[in-house]
Amino acid sequence: MLSDYGEDQLVAALLSQLPPFARRSGVYAGAGEDDCALVEPLKRKHRLLLKTDCVIEGIHFLPDTPPEQIGWKALCRPLSDIASTGGKPLHALVTFAVNRQRTLAWATNVYAGIGKAAREFGVTVVGGETASSPGPCFISVCLTGSVRRGRCVTRGGGKPGDLLYVTGRLGGSFPSGKHLHFRPRLAEGRWLARRDSVHAMMDLSDGLGTDLPRLARASGTGYCLDSAAVPRTPGCTVAQACGDGEDYELLVAVASGRARELESAWKRRFPNVPFTVVGSLAETDVKAGLGDTPGFDHFSDR
Amino acid sequence: MLSDYGEDQLVAALLSQLPPFARRSGVYAGAGEDDCALVEPLKRKHRLLLKTDCVIEGIHFLPDTPPEQIGWKALCRPLSDIASTGGKPLHALVTFAVNRQRTLAWATNVYAGIGKAAREFGVTVVGGETASSPGPCFISVCLTGSVRRGRCVTRGGGKPGDLLYVTGRLGGSFPSGKHLHFRPRLAEGRWLARRDSVHAMMDLSDGLGTDLPRLARASGTGYCLDSAAVPRTPGCTVAQACGDGEDYELLVAVASGRARELESAWKRRFPNVPFTVVGSLAETDVKAGLGDTPGFDHFSDR
Repeated sequence: MLSDYGEDQLVAALLSQLPPFARRSGVYAGAGEDDCALVEPLKRKHRLLLKTDCVIEGIHFLPDTPPEQIGWKALCRPLSDIASTGGKPLHALVTFAVNRQRTLAWATNVYAGIGKAAREFGVTVVGGETASSPGPCFISVCLTGSVRRGRCVTRGGGKPGDLLYVTGRLGGSFPSGKHLHFRPRLAEGRWLARRDSVHAMMDLSDGLGTDLPRLARASGTGYCLDSAAVPRTPGCTVAQACGDGEDYELLVAVASGRARELESAWKRRFPNVPFTVVGSLAETDVKAGLGDTPGFDHFSDR
Repeated sequence: MLSDYGEDQLVAALLSQLPPFARRSGVYAGAGEDDCALVEPLKRKHRLLLKTDCVIEGIHFLPDTPPEQIGWKALCRPLSDIASTGGKPLHALVTFAVNRQRTLAWATNVYAGIGKAAREFGVTVVGGETASSPGPCFISVCLTGSVRRGRCVTRGGGKPGDLLYVTGRLGGSFPSGKHLHFRPRLAEGRWLARRDSVHAMMDLSDGLGTDLPRLARASGTGYCLDSAAVPRTPGCTVAQACGDGEDYELLVAVASGRARELESAWKRRFPNVPFTVVGSLAETDVKAGLGDTPGFDHFSDR
């Protein structure tokens, strides 16, 4: 049990699971080294992206979920948000609140999953915090990223008439286990952000039913969804595809006149990832196609 | 109860408690606006500080702690780490996991406390995450800050012979309530970091008994503590002053030949804040004065 170890021992065991940070990568003080992490600022003409996200035992994973998958998911959730801007992830800070009844092996395996995702997607874990939780385990990850000035795609750039695309297939993320081993669409997001025809993007974490209205609201538009066209995970209904959440796919608004050209280029670049038109943005007062299929809401009982 | 509200309603209510962020302050997308926050990079010759810290119900505050004080503490804890480097805080990301049985008033009052500290110390809350917690409330805050290249003070710069100082008085932070309303030593930290005679700094969060050995280890030195000299909160024993933790004061290693000069300047600049010599750094194998007064350890039962 963790209560058999001191905090400094625990931290040393956790850090051993992470890829070493190199001085040459612009990290002057990293995880476990000082009160704060100290890193090189961005290159000129770039802007800094900041994102935080968390996973909680009993909500985002279960007590018996394999710990490597918990760590993978904890880092990949905010990476999906970086992906949706077209940015490149840089640094992570990890806050890990864990019950003292857990074993050291369980805790280090959570960090093995974080370390695996960090290596895979080029993230340097530069700091963090461990604390004991009197209840469920809680992991919060904060990411920095960089994006070239003028290349950042937000939710707010959509225009009436834009076609709406989604990557991959939606729905059933919990029963299929996708929510634990998905790959954030970083390469796809950066590729899309380089195209002028891409007006707006966001990642689908709460389900198309919740997230599409958010993108439309940020863009000051309405929307028209062709629910039958939504690409579904095999076995899922339309309601599940729109409402389950945790898809970690991209929702993209594309200038309609250049959508066909983008689709062809996508097929050459990402032949194995579906890129499907599911509707369009419309004038503000049009809100059609979602019916009563809201997405996941963390708080509402209704 | 929060379960009567949707997530978007809750987020809007929480954000209303925070100071508005201004475009001119270099924030292009802020809290509630997009998947990620987007901010202006640092000025030239500066480096980026990153820090995360958390407060957990049942550990760092109690179920009946006034919610404004919880929010204040959540932001001020990582601010104390920024203070210890001599840096200036810039942006915050707030992760708030709260039980659905809490009231909307309670949640918004937590954010009122965060907002008050943000105004006071010049921090812009640029993003965050809300989630429902099946157990205790959990607030994790990630901060960015800036520090001029060459002006950042770390734990690692101490040398044998340096005198050790602490700011303020130590011990009894829980019974006195100091842990809920302390002011991070930002002005003091920046003032100290401008002095060449200041070799190393850290903030005292786990107690001198734990944190002094950490500073000595990072500096590659030993230490000699004069425990009778440790400035104590009235009513506290030496063991409490060294072991209670949550002091949020600064521990500072100062070149011995210039310590008197620094002390005099301190008294003119901060006449109401004690600045007390408590010992010195020594050769590596010297570890004297702490006896059996370890600080707070989040995990160990021993």
